[in-house]
Amino acid sequence: MRPPVAIRRFGYAYVLVLCALLMGGCATVQTDPLPAWNDGKVKQSIVSFVNKVTTQGSPDYVPVPERIATFDNDGTLWAEQPMYFQLVFVLDRVKVLAPRHPEWKTTEPFASVLKGDLKRALSGGDKALIELVMATSTGMTTAEYEVIVNEWLATARHPRFNQPYTAMVYEPMLELAAYLRANGFKTFIVSGGGIEFMRPWTERVYGIPPEQVIGSSGKIKFEMRGGKPVLVRLPELSFVDDGPGKPVGINLHIGRRPIFAFGNSDGDLQMLQWTAAGGGARFMGLVHHTDAVREWEYDRQSSVGKLDKAFDEAQAKGWTIVDMKQDWNVIFPFEKK
Amino acid sequence: MRPPVAIRRFGYAYVLVLCALLMGGCATVQTDPLPAWNDGKVKQSIVSFVNKVTTQGSPDYVPVPERIATFDNDGTLWAEQPMYFQLVFVLDRVKVLAPRHPEWKTTEPFASVLKGDLKRALSGGDKALIELVMATSTGMTTAEYEVIVNEWLATARHPRFNQPYTAMVYEPMLELAAYLRANGFKTFIVSGGGIEFMRPWTERVYGIPPEQVIGSSGKIKFEMRGGKPVLVRLPELSFVDDGPGKPVGINLHIGRRPIFAFGNSDGDLQMLQWTAAGGGARFMGLVHHTDAVREWEYDRQSSVGKLDKAFDEAQAKGWTIVDMKQDWNVIFPFEKK
Repeated sequence: MRPPVAIRRFGYAYVLVLCALLMGGCATVQTDPLPAWNDGKVKQSIVSFVNKVTTQGSPDYVPVPERIATFDNDGTLWAEQPMYFQLVFVLDRVKVLAPRHPEWKTTEPFASVLKGDLKRALSGGDKALIELVMATSTGMTTAEYEVIVNEWLATARHPRFNQPYTAMVYEPMLELAAYLRANGFKTFIVSGGGIEFMRPWTERVYGIPPEQVIGSSGKIKFEMRGGKPVLVRLPELSFVDDGPGKPVGINLHIGRRPIFAFGNSDGDLQMLQWTAAGGGARFMGLVHHTDAVREWEYDRQSSVGKLDKAFDEAQAKGWTIVDMKQDWNVIFPFEKK
Repeated sequence: MRPPVAIRRFGYAYVLVLCALLMGGCATVQTDPLPAWNDGKVKQSIVSFVNKVTTQGSPDYVPVPERIATFDNDGTLWAEQPMYFQLVFVLDRVKVLAPRHPEWKTTEPFASVLKGDLKRALSGGDKALIELVMATSTGMTTAEYEVIVNEWLATARHPRFNQPYTAMVYEPMLELAAYLRANGFKTFIVSGGGIEFMRPWTERVYGIPPEQVIGSSGKIKFEMRGGKPVLVRLPELSFVDDGPGKPVGINLHIGRRPIFAFGNSDGDLQMLQWTAAGGGARFMGLVHHTDAVREWEYDRQSSVGKLDKAFDEAQAKGWTIVDMKQDWNVIFPFEKK
């Protein structure tokens, strides 16, 4: 058979380019957007949700500006064992700053941190924790703090995997966030962690820009220093973005309700409830840490990332629960190398 | 002369389409993106700034994610005379709610509001103002408040122009925000007004979505009511996004420094200073209200939108100052009809 006129005249390559330009690709090559996710009902629940809210004419169609997805960070986007990574940062800072604070040798919780007795250091609960954060993460400008965070990230290594902490992120969740963005979603982090502890690296690591990061924060003060304006981090807690604080943070920073939310612990329950309570199609997901070999196995009894009430509610309401061991064929990006 | 082969074969229309597809238009039709701005140095300063930060290879080139533009709202994007529009809303609410509050007849500042003696009502300064806001704008859920704001906007009319308040926006600033967005900027509102007072309408009116609106706010509480989660507006001020609060709000919500900021009063000075203090190309602009005929004429002596220190600093530092009378050929969109 004789090829059509355009091909005879201009050749196949030309027509293919033209065709691609005109039709956005002559044939759609079906590539799996979530290759780190094993086939099964969890992956299917994600794909079918995205399909229905993005299909024009579907009763579940959601216009692009309302495609808001929120992700917890610790235990959802990156690991949180053996302790929250921000806590590692804080403990490392205590050691760095100790020479300037001789009084810490005899003052708790600092004395126990310096002795390496973490259990005792944290026995004071939230009060001790906040004290450690305030002593190490305030009293400097926002710009100075960013430098400190970046320097720590560049040098600190995870004790079990010997990787930078920013490598301890979940490959399947990176894929999921990118898949959502490719489908017109805006992806946000909604974390109990410090907002300024996350912002220096979330864009590079997750593709989530600083203006889409919500977290806990302290008071900040504007000041002129030598004719230059600076923002100073004050030793006063301003907002705790955890538990019931998450919908409040979402409301303050986003001002509309997510249609998609992912967490991993009881601290995410209210975010998931708030997401579920909107009209139209909704997706609520939990990461269940079930893989003691490749990652960690913990839930109801864990002091970090306790998943108990949220687990029950997710089961009762049919939310998606990721079984990490079963549903993820890769956990950390460095496994692929 | 014989036309080229592709034209002979496929006709002009075909080649034009092909050409448009391949090159994004064979010839760029130069349409003025800022027709409501008169030609002159102010318009030129805007266009040349946008050109230099968006030109690849220019020493002033700024990557898209860092193209952050912040706008004050009252007096910069919409009018603020004879008083802040949110204050009109609050005073109207006092009248609506008065039957439920018989005690207001004898309690200031409510009694004076109900008698129409605004001057006396506001003689108590910020304390009286906050009391009025708390009494009228808290104690309901965020969803209920949104309904009240929308209902008010649908019915209230500006006393001088007999227009809905959302029509009292500046056409040149609508053009400017759209022009920036077309050049890869993300546009934010940074206003002393209530964040939840603005969000119901900023997307429709300015093309600025709720997650890009920063404002003053009160405390919000998450609650379950009959198994449904709600967010309740508490009568406690949480954050004042004005003056030195503006860089703090920018830091909290955006997490990076704007390269472009526009205000109109001393309440915007710190936002402009914060913007100016970054590295690379910067644009700082002020709207100067100079048109008593088409809008209002006010600056150093005004109780609303006082422009005094910021005016001096703008002149000293060569920031762009819009002379409304001279630089804008249209002020409100309804003038064009």
